[in-house]
Amino acid sequence: MAEAVTGSAEIGLIGLGTMGGNLALNIAENGFSIAVFNRTADKADSFHASAGALADKIVPTKTLEDFVAAIKSPRAIILMVPAGDAVDAQIAALRPLLDPQDLIIDAGNANYHDTNRRDEEAKAAGARFMGIGVSGGEEGARFGPSIMAGGPADGWDQVGHVLEAISAKHGDVPCAAHLGDAGAGHLVKTVHNGIEYADMQMIAEVYGVMRDGFGMTSAEIAEVFEGWNGGILQSYLIEISGKVARATDPETGRPMLDIILDKAGQKGTGRWTAIEALMLGTPASAIEAAVAARNLSARLDERKMGEAVFGAAPQASDKAVIATQMLEAALVAGKIICYAQGFGLILEAAKQYGWAMPLPEIAKIWREGCIIRSAMLNDMADALAEDPSRNLMLAPFFSAKLSETHDALRKVVAEGALKGLPVPALSAALSYFDIMRTERSTANMLQGQRDFFGAHGFERTDKDGSGYHGPWAMNAS
Amino acid sequence: MAEAVTGSAEIGLIGLGTMGGNLALNIAENGFSIAVFNRTADKADSFHASAGALADKIVPTKTLEDFVAAIKSPRAIILMVPAGDAVDAQIAALRPLLDPQDLIIDAGNANYHDTNRRDEEAKAAGARFMGIGVSGGEEGARFGPSIMAGGPADGWDQVGHVLEAISAKHGDVPCAAHLGDAGAGHLVKTVHNGIEYADMQMIAEVYGVMRDGFGMTSAEIAEVFEGWNGGILQSYLIEISGKVARATDPETGRPMLDIILDKAGQKGTGRWTAIEALMLGTPASAIEAAVAARNLSARLDERKMGEAVFGAAPQASDKAVIATQMLEAALVAGKIICYAQGFGLILEAAKQYGWAMPLPEIAKIWREGCIIRSAMLNDMADALAEDPSRNLMLAPFFSAKLSETHDALRKVVAEGALKGLPVPALSAALSYFDIMRTERSTANMLQGQRDFFGAHGFERTDKDGSGYHGPWAMNAS
Repeated sequence: MAEAVTGSAEIGLIGLGTMGGNLALNIAENGFSIAVFNRTADKADSFHASAGALADKIVPTKTLEDFVAAIKSPRAIILMVPAGDAVDAQIAALRPLLDPQDLIIDAGNANYHDTNRRDEEAKAAGARFMGIGVSGGEEGARFGPSIMAGGPADGWDQVGHVLEAISAKHGDVPCAAHLGDAGAGHLVKTVHNGIEYADMQMIAEVYGVMRDGFGMTSAEIAEVFEGWNGGILQSYLIEISGKVARATDPETGRPMLDIILDKAGQKGTGRWTAIEALMLGTPASAIEAAVAARNLSARLDERKMGEAVFGAAPQASDKAVIATQMLEAALVAGKIICYAQGFGLILEAAKQYGWAMPLPEIAKIWREGCIIRSAMLNDMADALAEDPSRNLMLAPFFSAKLSETHDALRKVVAEGALKGLPVPALSAALSYFDIMRTERSTANMLQGQRDFFGAHGFERTDKDGSGYHGPWAMNAS
Repeated sequence: MAEAVTGSAEIGLIGLGTMGGNLALNIAENGFSIAVFNRTADKADSFHASAGALADKIVPTKTLEDFVAAIKSPRAIILMVPAGDAVDAQIAALRPLLDPQDLIIDAGNANYHDTNRRDEEAKAAGARFMGIGVSGGEEGARFGPSIMAGGPADGWDQVGHVLEAISAKHGDVPCAAHLGDAGAGHLVKTVHNGIEYADMQMIAEVYGVMRDGFGMTSAEIAEVFEGWNGGILQSYLIEISGKVARATDPETGRPMLDIILDKAGQKGTGRWTAIEALMLGTPASAIEAAVAARNLSARLDERKMGEAVFGAAPQASDKAVIATQMLEAALVAGKIICYAQGFGLILEAAKQYGWAMPLPEIAKIWREGCIIRSAMLNDMADALAEDPSRNLMLAPFFSAKLSETHDALRKVVAEGALKGLPVPALSAALSYFDIMRTERSTANMLQGQRDFFGAHGFERTDKDGSGYHGPWAMNAS
């Protein structure tokens, strides 16, 4: 295509599903003219027709050629199509119509390994590509999401002002940032979702203690969450947990929580986080426990059989042993630890890939717009600014908080164990904390076993060097 | 190569490292003549020269051509080279020298995805390929390992008698079996290693309670393990844990356990198991916790900082609260649950890939020769024979054992939480048990949250169907 044939739209967007449509409206509302295209071509027209006052900023197009022609050169084109093959197909269809300086931006929920691959393919083709993670659901897309961008710096130079404009704001600070090359943005989005899983699971665990241990009603539980949302746990997830607990089913008049079946789905990103943690050798045990808990929840038939064989697990708990204030403190400790694991994972990926990954920036852009937004992220940004490579739980602010709260976490985990109230993510967080504060762990036994059966060798406590063997060694003298 | 040029060796083996050399001696000792080849060609001669009475069964060769020519047609060639690229390189070098009916057998520690790929590549080339997992370390390779075979049935028809002959025996029953197509054998070996990780970790956890909670000496701890090895926990890992605890450093006279540094290494297969569990969506939380614990153990510097900030975690525990008998019972419960997770993972993989995966056979071939061999595997084989698709913890024999022991597991986990004695794998096992015996879990809260922020929809407790939304739904009336 000749360079001369360019239109006036400042940006383009392909894929007018809920997320894509809302993102396009957000862009238009921020004053940028935007060309839109959808695989089912009529969609662009109907989208335009329903855009109301924003319609004059939106250029609907019916063919990819018209779409490309409608955008100002050098073009920036956002893809909001289902993650996976559809993204590759869309890139393949689009690239022959583009000039080398045009930029394709995948804003879907891509696996960051795919983004790395697409980045390489783009470079090999002399083309330009970015991958950005967008968090905040439908409402975030429409009114201000958190945006985690990865790709070439000159890509960010080109579209950063648009992404900052449409992002959520914390005060005046946009919740959008360029985090590194290639898949850096999508990796951070993945870890965001892994933290989200753990955060949600830990809330569900203390909910279980209140419901099954304390025998509290949904309304009583709602009141507790509402109270917590005024304190250190202030966050979107605590807020909506209160709203979910408060809500009544219009059909039956019963609490929504009694109506909702306990089979949790997942879309994969929490699982990806756990897999990445394993691949990078960095422990994200609270996140892994949350993923496992979702998988278990889906096995309702097996759980019914289990209850038939063993009897129901949960037994009443005594509020004299763990009060609701103690649940709040346990959740604070669990939350700090799960974020320590998440940031630790990002740090490890940054090392592995040589990505910038400014951790304080990441904490900052999570403060608004995204699902895990919370007051505590502000303190995390400060702590990470002091020393991004230090384990978050060792930062003075958070180590003080943990010193205040870990005793409550212990008591909740112990009570959960004794009374059959499952608290897998809180337990994993506590184990992580206790191992990370113990110089002399029990892994010497593992090393002894490994050397015994496989002559793997070990280091010694009393001198330097490695590859020592015990007197049991097969070939030892 | 013309078919006529074949030798008299019944089988061939490439790769005379410790494992390969021991396997070749084992094969020779069982009466099979074997041609051997090593990348550094002199190795075959020195291996032959040091084989003593077995030398006349061993045909050393110095070129791949001579090696291939020395083996009877149709040939069977075992590769025992480092997992990864070396295997592909060896196959590529070998295949042009072979006839279509010849069989290559990768006996290394391959990732089963690689074995699946090599199986496909072999089929596409009209060639024959198998992947077998070999467990038992050096000693097992020499005197009888557990062998988990995957690949075409006619491959097993060809070499099964050799593999059975060299395998460990439980009574008269060989610990070698054909488990399914392609990567089935290597997957089972991977899960074996994952279970091994969890089994070892749980032993290390109760060791920690004895050492740090009860203040017991290594010798006292050795006595406990020795006692357990005469009971229901009888197993190679308990046996060697006793020996490790009993051993004294020849250099210093101190207990070996005090000398061994607590930084555990890993060779990846435990991690692969955890990754596979995540990919297949089947919870293997005790195995995941064990992998995370190894990763944490490696972070000694960070743990030192943690102890400096928070003080040492472990506090004395009261034997009146948890006696050593209680530790034994907790370990029994944890072990049953971790095997339930491991077999569940194999079952899921069998479904996904359409592999035979006879679970009772797998339990049987693990009874001897491999690292996780134990008395309990005999009962597992029986339970799985009754109903291989039932969760192991629901089999009458094991549900009875769990009913007897889960209370001890609770008390150990609770005491560990309260006293800062990390028991991550035992905690994960308990959470799994309690969730799997609870019809009404707390995942309704997760589903409420997910519907609130992402309109993901849920099922209802009071009627069929899915995709229901709460009154908070963005577009709800």
